[in-house]
Amino acid sequence: MTLTPDQSAEISAARERTAATLRPTVPALEAMLFNAIPVLDHGFVRVIDYMGDDAAVVQAARVSYGRGTRKISEDEGLIRYLMRHWHSTPFEMCEIKYHVKLPIFVARQWIRHRTANVNEYSARYSILDKEFYIPAPEHLAAQSSDNRQGRGAVLEGEDAARVLSLLRQDAEQTYAHYEEMLDENGAGLARELARMNLTLNTYTQWYWKTDLHNLFHFLRLRADAHAQYEIRVYAEAMLETVKAWVPLCYAAFTDYRLGAVTFSAKMLDILRRMLAGEAVEQHDSGLSKREWAEMMAALGR
Amino acid sequence: MTLTPDQSAEISAARERTAATLRPTVPALEAMLFNAIPVLDHGFVRVIDYMGDDAAVVQAARVSYGRGTRKISEDEGLIRYLMRHWHSTPFEMCEIKYHVKLPIFVARQWIRHRTANVNEYSARYSILDKEFYIPAPEHLAAQSSDNRQGRGAVLEGEDAARVLSLLRQDAEQTYAHYEEMLDENGAGLARELARMNLTLNTYTQWYWKTDLHNLFHFLRLRADAHAQYEIRVYAEAMLETVKAWVPLCYAAFTDYRLGAVTFSAKMLDILRRMLAGEAVEQHDSGLSKREWAEMMAALGR
Amino acid sequence: MTLTPDQSAEISAARERTAATLRPTVPALEAMLFNAIPVLDHGFVRVIDYMGDDAAVVQAARVSYGRGTRKISEDEGLIRYLMRHWHSTPFEMCEIKYHVKLPIFVARQWIRHRTANVNEYSARYSILDKEFYIPAPEHLAAQSSDNRQGRGAVLEGEDAARVLSLLRQDAEQTYAHYEEMLDENGAGLARELARMNLTLNTYTQWYWKTDLHNLFHFLRLRADAHAQYEIRVYAEAMLETVKAWVPLCYAAFTDYRLGAVTFSAKMLDILRRMLAGEAVEQHDSGLSKREWAEMMAALGR
Amino acid sequence: MTLTPDQSAEISAARERTAATLRPTVPALEAMLFNAIPVLDHGFVRVIDYMGDDAAVVQAARVSYGRGTRKISEDEGLIRYLMRHWHSTPFEMCEIKYHVKLPIFVARQWIRHRTANVNEYSARYSILDKEFYIPAPEHLAAQSSDNRQGRGAVLEGEDAARVLSLLRQDAEQTYAHYEEMLDENGAGLARELARMNLTLNTYTQWYWKTDLHNLFHFLRLRADAHAQYEIRVYAEAMLETVKAWVPLCYAAFTDYRLGAVTFSAKMLDILRRMLAGEAVEQHDSGLSKREWAEMMAALGR
Repeated sequence: MTLTPDQSAEISAARERTAATLRPTVPALEAMLFNAIPVLDHGFVRVIDYMGDDAAVVQAARVSYGRGTRKISEDEGLIRYLMRHWHSTPFEMCEIKYHVKLPIFVARQWIRHRTANVNEYSARYSILDKEFYIPAPEHLAAQSSDNRQGRGAVLEGEDAARVLSLLRQDAEQTYAHYEEMLDENGAGLARELARMNLTLNTYTQWYWKTDLHNLFHFLRLRADAHAQYEIRVYAEAMLETVKAWVPLCYAAFTDYRLGAVTFSAKMLDILRRMLAGEAVEQHDSGLSKREWAEMMAALGR
Repeated sequence: MTLTPDQSAEISAARERTAATLRPTVPALEAMLFNAIPVLDHGFVRVIDYMGDDAAVVQAARVSYGRGTRKISEDEGLIRYLMRHWHSTPFEMCEIKYHVKLPIFVARQWIRHRTANVNEYSARYSILDKEFYIPAPEHLAAQSSDNRQGRGAVLEGEDAARVLSLLRQDAEQTYAHYEEMLDENGAGLARELARMNLTLNTYTQWYWKTDLHNLFHFLRLRADAHAQYEIRVYAEAMLETVKAWVPLCYAAFTDYRLGAVTFSAKMLDILRRMLAGEAVEQHDSGLSKREWAEMMAALGR
Repeated sequence: MTLTPDQSAEISAARERTAATLRPTVPALEAMLFNAIPVLDHGFVRVIDYMGDDAAVVQAARVSYGRGTRKISEDEGLIRYLMRHWHSTPFEMCEIKYHVKLPIFVARQWIRHRTANVNEYSARYSILDKEFYIPAPEHLAAQSSDNRQGRGAVLEGEDAARVLSLLRQDAEQTYAHYEEMLDENGAGLARELARMNLTLNTYTQWYWKTDLHNLFHFLRLRADAHAQYEIRVYAEAMLETVKAWVPLCYAAFTDYRLGAVTFSAKMLDILRRMLAGEAVEQHDSGLSKREWAEMMAALGR
Repeated sequence: MTLTPDQSAEISAARERTAATLRPTVPALEAMLFNAIPVLDHGFVRVIDYMGDDAAVVQAARVSYGRGTRKISEDEGLIRYLMRHWHSTPFEMCEIKYHVKLPIFVARQWIRHRTANVNEYSARYSILDKEFYIPAPEHLAAQSSDNRQGRGAVLEGEDAARVLSLLRQDAEQTYAHYEEMLDENGAGLARELARMNLTLNTYTQWYWKTDLHNLFHFLRLRADAHAQYEIRVYAEAMLETVKAWVPLCYAAFTDYRLGAVTFSAKMLDILRRMLAGEAVEQHDSGLSKREWAEMMAALGR
């Protein structure tokens, strides 16, 4: 379960209060505001606040006195131009704040993105809830044999059952001991110490705020097929919120970043030879086998 | 003049458009939104957008599902606690965006604050307006004789007249030559080159966005009595916007930062001796004359 | 044990290789270079590289062509002035790189300091060693009764024994299951998944690099008496390296930051009344009980 | 002239002092250390200090106890892999510090790169030298007719002469008035005010320090053909220092960044059609004319 009834009630109450504002407002994102988008077995992402919209990017790029927008087609052209030519500052003029519930091992990857503001629930100050991530059977994968940081086939039968049983049992047991150590009628261990007995699949939560440029950077890396599944699902949920929020920026991002490929100087040279009709092979390409495979994959060959 | 009639009209038009939002909204800041607060002879600061309010700081500190607020007195106590103990992250959860028009030499000091987002009007792409800062007579000060980065007495008579005349005349002349060099019927010099002929008191403008924690850091340094007058007036105008926006945070900032003094370990030792009734003098204080003077000034002696 | 014989041998070998350089060099820090300073039961801090020295701070503050130094007393005075007046950029001109081995729950606090560069050992790619932090008996403390994020009395007898036994047993068991799940002759679970079964006291390690200004900020917060013991011991070990590296900056930091106290505007007012001979009490001070207690503690009363 | 005899002497003296160090040392960069590389008419770039080398990138990526290097070919492969897959943190483990003398209008572009440390010569505190940038005749270009932020043909004859004469005369005059206003026997205007009369081609100088990842980002944008000539020449001089310092990283950067091209999702689709033998034209490509031209240019068509 993602939310308790109390939490759901608090969120519903928050969605009752409307105010009038002169600020840029995006109805499609307002419709999602505060609501939790479920991710994994107990996690969620929810948008808490936002600043700016597609027009705010245009306004900043033009340093204008008003909204900066002219015709929608001109705005779209400008946004696409900015994205294509790596102009980052206009996208920094939009800001978004999320509340995220996520397993600690995912939080440890996420926090590597430093250009963001974070307030995490403190296990030094408070007691963590009894919630931990257990992968769904279809996501319980073996180590990849050819990629040291990837997954191979899905586990099945005995192997899968044994892994799930170990994960569940160890999380249950370490949490029970966490509670026992904290018990004021027993040891009453300091919270800042007791927490060390929890496993890395325990859920934590935080407020996380960043600007659109840095959010795109995060999403490009974390919505990528090579990202670990458990963080990718958060990125995918966030992509939906970005699509609702800044549709023109989102479309440019999809074209120029998510679906784009960078060819090195050597690859460009090969591409030119291929377009000139030459049948280039890996052995005379100057690329390593791995690079060659990556290039051919990008070209759909 | 700070704004052209066209710019004023654009701003008035923007203030006509109200939308409904679920986001935290601050009526006192909405009342100021978009309007230009005049600064110096042609400059201004205006709030373009904001995210969050006092309650958002509380909400982030508690990582809560709702607004996080309980009683206003509890919120105030928490905010004061956070400020006193240098907790920076909850204040980072509020964000504000300004449009600022300012002389280039002020912009060069301002940009030293790196944790902010900036879009400046491009003199590589566009032509700068003919507007430059000329100090008012009461701000035309001589070099301080005892502080290498301070001002002394106000200039008067011939000296003042001569300086004002030089500043005005050189700015007029360099701008006229800037226009002449740009003229397509003449040299048609590239804009990115022609701009180098402008003087540092020429006005530029930018969108500048930062979070409340970093804004407080900026204001502490730039609203300080030792800051150059020409940037301090911008900081003072911004303080008014912060007071309207987050009154509880503003009050805590005033008490714990703006009006506060840090005593070194050595100074603390002296303080204890003084409170114990000892008549400490500079020569037996262990402080340099300069430090002693700073300490006595802080104690109002 | 902190290092394996192989690791010790690698470090000894590295300390054999001397090169000639024109760069500022600090013999006292060279003497510590690469060597592991033991921290907690299996952790360490070791300096891997550094850039700059006390004179580099002076050189940058003066933007000089040579070393910038004049007399040592002038350098000391300038460094003290810069520290006292919160000039941060000259201190940013020195950089240091550490290799740190630390429990994951400590790493999670540490990483909150964002202005640093980090490369962590990847449990997605590699298998973590079987090493976890078990507190020494004298650091096994109960929850503080009056401070929600502090420790109270040290646990004794049965309580202590039970807690140590639980911590040890759970870490052993979860690690054994981690190994079992990874076993290629068994499930061969992906490393990126298996790691979630580890407890938060498992050791990780990273390269961590920052500049002297941000290091001082880290040390001020983490060498503070209110910091959790398990991170404070790392900060204390690092303080020794800073003292060897930049003794003048270190002395200024000790006086103006570590041993300093900031008094709010309200507190300053009380201080003036006290120095004028008035017997101020909490109830007529305008401070809360908590603030009053903090102020009296700072004054050693 | 770039350096005064005194400055040259100071630099020569600094190059006399050799020390022994255990740190990674790069002889090819030591050979350049402190020496000024002339840029533009009075500017320069000189390397003041550095931390790390190619092996330090490898060491950090492997989080190793020793140098981390195995065979040179393995190191090269790893560095190329890291660069190709946008791993930024290992490159952040190397740091470099420059002393740069540059015209103020160039400094204003440069400072937009925020992830760096800067100490600039203070015109609030000191008096700037009489040195300003005057373009060489071959760099005096007209505004481009088709690119609002580009240059067109080089000016010639009367036009060129007039522009050079205006630039020179205005810089001379405003500097003479700057000196007059500062004169203590005259107005003795405060330095922080007098500086506003200087033109934007006046030279300033600063210490600028950054890590290798952020330096590469700077160089990719500023060594690009679309960058303004006056900043590009600084980037080109710095490229030479990077080549001497970290030759393997430099080679990877050249291949995967400087000489690389990113194709959007739409462009990739067109590429696939072209490789399949289809004769795609702009009008049936789905690209705008501008994008189509950019794509064809990248493919050398």
